[in-house]
Amino acid sequence: MKGKVYIVGAGPGDPELITLKGVCALEKADVVLYDRLIDPTLLQHAPDAEHIYVGKISRQTPFNEQERIESLMVSYARIGKTVVRLKGGDPFVFGRGGEEALTLLSEDIPFQIIPGISASYAAPGNAGIPLTHRGIASSFSVFSGHHAQDSTGDVDWDIAAGVQTAVFLMGAHRLKKIVSSLINHGRSPSTPAAVIGSATTENEKVRTGTLATIAERAKDIPPPATLIVGDVVSIGTTLSSNNVSLARLIRKLHSETA
Amino acid sequence: MKGKVYIVGAGPGDPELITLKGVCALEKADVVLYDRLIDPTLLQHAPDAEHIYVGKISRQTPFNEQERIESLMVSYARIGKTVVRLKGGDPFVFGRGGEEALTLLSEDIPFQIIPGISASYAAPGNAGIPLTHRGIASSFSVFSGHHAQDSTGDVDWDIAAGVQTAVFLMGAHRLKKIVSSLINHGRSPSTPAAVIGSATTENEKVRTGTLATIAERAKDIPPPATLIVGDVVSIGTTLSSNNVSLARLIRKLHSETA
Repeated sequence: MKGKVYIVGAGPGDPELITLKGVCALEKADVVLYDRLIDPTLLQHAPDAEHIYVGKISRQTPFNEQERIESLMVSYARIGKTVVRLKGGDPFVFGRGGEEALTLLSEDIPFQIIPGISASYAAPGNAGIPLTHRGIASSFSVFSGHHAQDSTGDVDWDIAAGVQTAVFLMGAHRLKKIVSSLINHGRSPSTPAAVIGSATTENEKVRTGTLATIAERAKDIPPPATLIVGDVVSIGTTLSSNNVSLARLIRKLHSETA
Repeated sequence: MKGKVYIVGAGPGDPELITLKGVCALEKADVVLYDRLIDPTLLQHAPDAEHIYVGKISRQTPFNEQERIESLMVSYARIGKTVVRLKGGDPFVFGRGGEEALTLLSEDIPFQIIPGISASYAAPGNAGIPLTHRGIASSFSVFSGHHAQDSTGDVDWDIAAGVQTAVFLMGAHRLKKIVSSLINHGRSPSTPAAVIGSATTENEKVRTGTLATIAERAKDIPPPATLIVGDVVSIGTTLSSNNVSLARLIRKLHSETA
């Protein structure tokens, strides 16, 4: 008797930003293994399931915590349960979903990945910052902000300083280091930058500035946070201020980029 | 009397990959302006609304087509209608949602952006390819695959060849050019690569190979397609084959990256 595991992305924070498919999986679940950043109202989609908290605290989690999560998924599936592994954002974007999927594969347990909205673009998007914009940026790059613990090593700063729009996830506690590294590798200190904390939730906070000023301006924002660096940020400042006297600035922007 | 515009991301193809919030907006809509790649069953969430097709055909669309869409949004909102602008993927990731939002702002029309799942990570994710994976890639970069018409100019190939995981959206018709540019700028021809067509729909097609072989292997895949270049693709090959005799390969991968 074998169950099935759904590895489900819950989205960036707002519980209405889960997908219909994610909700369907929750409705079928016998067991839900949920992360620290999951909005508790999402568990109401699985009212009769067993809810197991497997949240990790960033930078303080021993490696065996991840092993424990994978072992829970495997052992519940082995006794025939339908398991939902509910993860913040998307399972495959810094979510270690790849590791969990490889474990299930090696244990011959059927599984399905259901994507979720990644904060990498939904956090800036909700603040009115498009990662790409005609005439301003036609590409973007997403980096993990905390590499101290990561065997992959540090960010390639020459690359990070050279991309059009750079996004750093979960980097609030390393904001100063990220900003100074980008400047040291050639990015202009006057490049527009924004930090968004608790994106898409009622606690969302947005700070904007430049590479030179953003660390100071955003120092009160707790993790999880997203840093966006690039000229697209100045569009965001326009959009989120929602001030019609800015129409002149917008027309200027349009005529410059037409 | 002023209406409101919801700019909604419909996700990568599968109609169950829209968000609950997107469905709520559709349920409130008087008018839905929908794109070419939208699954028609999504319109069933707005059965009594007026459905207006505003799909554009890539590379053949005159600039005034985009102006026509924006003018429809504005004129319906001005007579008090609730308008949903339903776009494939996410509105702000190559979706020109920024331009539409700026127009609404300049016309003083209330609007809200509702993010959608971007094919940039959901297409590889559905094929079992995580864009990041501990020990293999801690960053990814997303490029638009068709720049011939774009005033932003061409891709920065030195950057594109240097990033850990590179994703090109909508580049099927320029696959050969993209691949040869990456190789010419220093990316190894043996780098794993995958092309995914019609991701997350029943017509989904996945082809894998290397930078040297992928253009030939994927030449039968029509747009919209997504190209993924990087070592993470070899994990995807493992995951999607779903062959337990690969457990040995997985253990090897784990021990190499621990």
